[in-house]
Amino acid sequence: MVVGRDIDDLPKNAANYTALTPLWFLERAATVHPTRTSLVHGSRHYTWLQTYQRCRRLASALSAHSIGVGSTVAVIAPNIPALYEAHFGVPMSGSVLNPVNIRLNASTIAFLLSHSSSSAIMVDQDFFPLAEEALKIWSSHQKTQTFKPPLLIVIADEEHCLDPKQLKYAVECRGATEYETFLESGDPEFAWKGPEDEWQSIALNYTSGTTASPKGVVLHHRGAYLMALSGAIVWGMSEGCVYLWTLPMFHCNGWSYTWTLAALCGTNICLRQVTAKAVYAAIAKYKVTHFCAAPIVLNAILNAPQNDTILPLPHVVHVNTAGAAPPPAVLLAMSQLGFRVTHTYGLSETYGPSTLCAWKPEWDSLPPEAQARLNARQGVRYVGLEGLDVVNPKTMKPVPADGATIGEVVMRGNVVMKGYLKNPKANEEAFKNGWFHSGDLAVKGPDGYIEIKDRSKDIIISGGENISSVEVENVLYSHPKILEASVVARPDEKWGESPCAFVTLKSTVENAQEQKRMVEDIIKFCRSNMPAYWVPKSVFFGPLPKTATGKIQKHLLRAKAQKMGPVKISKL
Amino acid sequence: MVVGRDIDDLPKNAANYTALTPLWFLERAATVHPTRTSLVHGSRHYTWLQTYQRCRRLASALSAHSIGVGSTVAVIAPNIPALYEAHFGVPMSGSVLNPVNIRLNASTIAFLLSHSSSSAIMVDQDFFPLAEEALKIWSSHQKTQTFKPPLLIVIADEEHCLDPKQLKYAVECRGATEYETFLESGDPEFAWKGPEDEWQSIALNYTSGTTASPKGVVLHHRGAYLMALSGAIVWGMSEGCVYLWTLPMFHCNGWSYTWTLAALCGTNICLRQVTAKAVYAAIAKYKVTHFCAAPIVLNAILNAPQNDTILPLPHVVHVNTAGAAPPPAVLLAMSQLGFRVTHTYGLSETYGPSTLCAWKPEWDSLPPEAQARLNARQGVRYVGLEGLDVVNPKTMKPVPADGATIGEVVMRGNVVMKGYLKNPKANEEAFKNGWFHSGDLAVKGPDGYIEIKDRSKDIIISGGENISSVEVENVLYSHPKILEASVVARPDEKWGESPCAFVTLKSTVENAQEQKRMVEDIIKFCRSNMPAYWVPKSVFFGPLPKTATGKIQKHLLRAKAQKMGPVKISKL
Repeated sequence: MVVGRDIDDLPKNAANYTALTPLWFLERAATVHPTRTSLVHGSRHYTWLQTYQRCRRLASALSAHSIGVGSTVAVIAPNIPALYEAHFGVPMSGSVLNPVNIRLNASTIAFLLSHSSSSAIMVDQDFFPLAEEALKIWSSHQKTQTFKPPLLIVIADEEHCLDPKQLKYAVECRGATEYETFLESGDPEFAWKGPEDEWQSIALNYTSGTTASPKGVVLHHRGAYLMALSGAIVWGMSEGCVYLWTLPMFHCNGWSYTWTLAALCGTNICLRQVTAKAVYAAIAKYKVTHFCAAPIVLNAILNAPQNDTILPLPHVVHVNTAGAAPPPAVLLAMSQLGFRVTHTYGLSETYGPSTLCAWKPEWDSLPPEAQARLNARQGVRYVGLEGLDVVNPKTMKPVPADGATIGEVVMRGNVVMKGYLKNPKANEEAFKNGWFHSGDLAVKGPDGYIEIKDRSKDIIISGGENISSVEVENVLYSHPKILEASVVARPDEKWGESPCAFVTLKSTVENAQEQKRMVEDIIKFCRSNMPAYWVPKSVFFGPLPKTATGKIQKHLLRAKAQKMGPVKISKL
Repeated sequence: MVVGRDIDDLPKNAANYTALTPLWFLERAATVHPTRTSLVHGSRHYTWLQTYQRCRRLASALSAHSIGVGSTVAVIAPNIPALYEAHFGVPMSGSVLNPVNIRLNASTIAFLLSHSSSSAIMVDQDFFPLAEEALKIWSSHQKTQTFKPPLLIVIADEEHCLDPKQLKYAVECRGATEYETFLESGDPEFAWKGPEDEWQSIALNYTSGTTASPKGVVLHHRGAYLMALSGAIVWGMSEGCVYLWTLPMFHCNGWSYTWTLAALCGTNICLRQVTAKAVYAAIAKYKVTHFCAAPIVLNAILNAPQNDTILPLPHVVHVNTAGAAPPPAVLLAMSQLGFRVTHTYGLSETYGPSTLCAWKPEWDSLPPEAQARLNARQGVRYVGLEGLDVVNPKTMKPVPADGATIGEVVMRGNVVMKGYLKNPKANEEAFKNGWFHSGDLAVKGPDGYIEIKDRSKDIIISGGENISSVEVENVLYSHPKILEASVVARPDEKWGESPCAFVTLKSTVENAQEQKRMVEDIIKFCRSNMPAYWVPKSVFFGPLPKTATGKIQKHLLRAKAQKMGPVKISKL
């Protein structure tokens, strides 16, 4: 009574199996909505048909230079059309896209180019000097006879760029091909092929540098496809939405929303430079429905001068925030302005955010502060992620759902990276025991929602007690005069470690006396809002070091705190 | 300068690869929204946690009877909770779900049970006599010593069922286990496993019987997952939507929306019997946001007595219509009532609809009639289908996009079936030349939208000219007195074939004279609205034979027209 093999023994064939890839989304968008605006950049507007043709030209031109399967193409550019097009045109040639963080220095970029053996570099004209310096460093580390310089493509953006001479210099003196000229050499009807195997790599994203050594996160076509759809579904994005590129596309392929926009036949609004004023202006001009941003960008939006805003908002704007845990105070203020904030969490290793704090209708009736506190949690898994838990990293046993026991966040499923490029040791660690280890520490609430307490290395151990630097920061953010705050461990003679706060104020303090008063005020505020042992023993003012994606570089602050030497017993 | 194997040589592991299956959607819904209503059936309400536990119990109980990978479980039931649960519980046991069309007769069902070697039959109490008769026929065709009767599970639905005695009879006299008892024997914490291979079969759906011999369409976990997400995205369904089960779940797994609802953590409203009154009542009571229906159901909704309606609609209701080409007149009337109708098209072989008439903002300003005409086309591919075209089936060359040249609709991609069960010949034909051949004839418009003109076998060839029966029907539907119409070929002495119309009127005609006047009126109406050679030469009144899914059974009408003999030269 068992059909047995019959029911399963129907093989794949050309009609019923296609390797998953987001590339077909673009072909579909060009077929279904050929005349709809795909992308706007200043005065430049493209339709989906044009974008498709430009991507085919790019793939064709790369292929003509023998760049294909096994090759890597680096792009050094802010959010401009060429970087969007590269997300399709590069993999259409079979090669792998490596979007480079433009805030990195030349020697780090040299490391990435060398580590990924880039066959071609597409670089925005303003970043040409940076690329040139990186190339110089790279070539100096190579034996001259074996170093084959990569194909150099310079992207003109005359409407927005600072230094028009760079373009001329790049083309005339350094032999670079201008991007539009390069596209013209390609065939707009190029017969590109999807990957034969959906496990083929589509992108390579280096970790953003809150840690010292960048690792190359390799993503595949299958994951990019699944993440593109999953990210649309959990965020309620629908066909034809208008998406503002506040989040750099070089950050994990814009959390895979580059590909989502093609699946939804939506409209991309490029933003070369993110300011609160530009964000508000774009919302008004293009009827932006969605954007993604790190909490630090939300902070800038919240603190924009009235004149730069368009408040009250003319329509609902959905915001997806991740990249760091957003303080509840920031979430509350955003919702009070009328933004609908979805709080998500993830890593480059999970194609961008892969958990979200799914909103519950029963929260609607809570006071705004309680809502913000609930929404500040990292929540539950995306529909495309098959497993998420908080575990004791030694025993792999899930922590109890008590909102108190700290464990490591682990994930598994189809939107977890292939692995780190040329780094078997890191892969072994990352994938041990059948889960991806995020290195983030969290608790699990009685409702199953996870809440990040810290990166493993950000936890402060004071007198044997764990202090979550994030929780101390959350309190600091609710202080009316504090704009940004970051808390790290500082050596402490009595306690081993104690919290050390680095703070940026909304308005500057004029003199030492005023500064002293402010420190006292902050300490007092902390004393009434947190356990005594959490209260920072040191407070410093000044701008905070950040990565390109707006993440505060805690490792620099930690180094600074280390260098200060221990807090003396007598100090406070 | 080529990374080569390095970039692709990162193998799958337990952390970064999971076989795609919609089953994880249910586990997620139970985790994220455990207390949200998953399903309503009369006075019965379940939460997502309960639904998940019931499905795990079902899988556990089936496993205890050695029903697993390679087994098939048939369900003979209307839209009741057990059928929804079977969409998860059956594949969680590893076995394949075969939802049986309840309008089939016993001998056809016997054929299906035998062909699929069903290991278990779940049957609604009202359909127990039908199942029993089918079993009798099946066993009579088998050698007694080899026939192992399948496990028999009878589903009680005392609130809605017609004959309470059937349940008692089934359990006490025929040894069936009542469904709830069966569930109780299972473990609500059953450690089910997803499929090892996403190509593993999840469902078996027999073609609906507009053709004579049912074929067993085998679907896999991968396709079910992709279709579930794809169907949500193209229809703009979002998290928490409320879905009314007007469409039978046994029709192609409810066009895969059974699984979509779990992905969206939405709410299922069961409807045992579809009437216009019940549809309107559910919309009002449960704030239904979405339902699917064949055009024939839309017709019933449109022609409901005022008292049965709740017009004007209290909120937007999205309707997905497919199963037959909806006449523009029906689309127009629905949109005038405030329903937002998305017109889709597909087959059991493509997991349900896999093309849709994607609405264009530029249509918004057109007159309603023009909108309905555009929307009556079958359109463009779903985001989950990688290829769609209209081709000359001999040369496989795409037809020109001229809106006139007829070709066959072909599809390819991940939401095309694995194949037909135990039918290599049909598979060879269906998959020839690397495409799935739909057997439907269509044209392609200048905008790339396809428009079905007929099933290959429904085309009428009159005097050497092709006549699309659908186009003749569309004109008939716009006649104010016609409720339903179906046009088939009838032998014709002069023309070889000529159109023969079977028509249901909105109000009955009393006598032969009135009937004659009505025929004349219809013929006259046709003459002024279509080419002369399209005008039906015969018109008959009466109810139309339909399948369970509301499709008119043209093969029965065609047989009837054949039996009448040819239209004589002298007749008109």
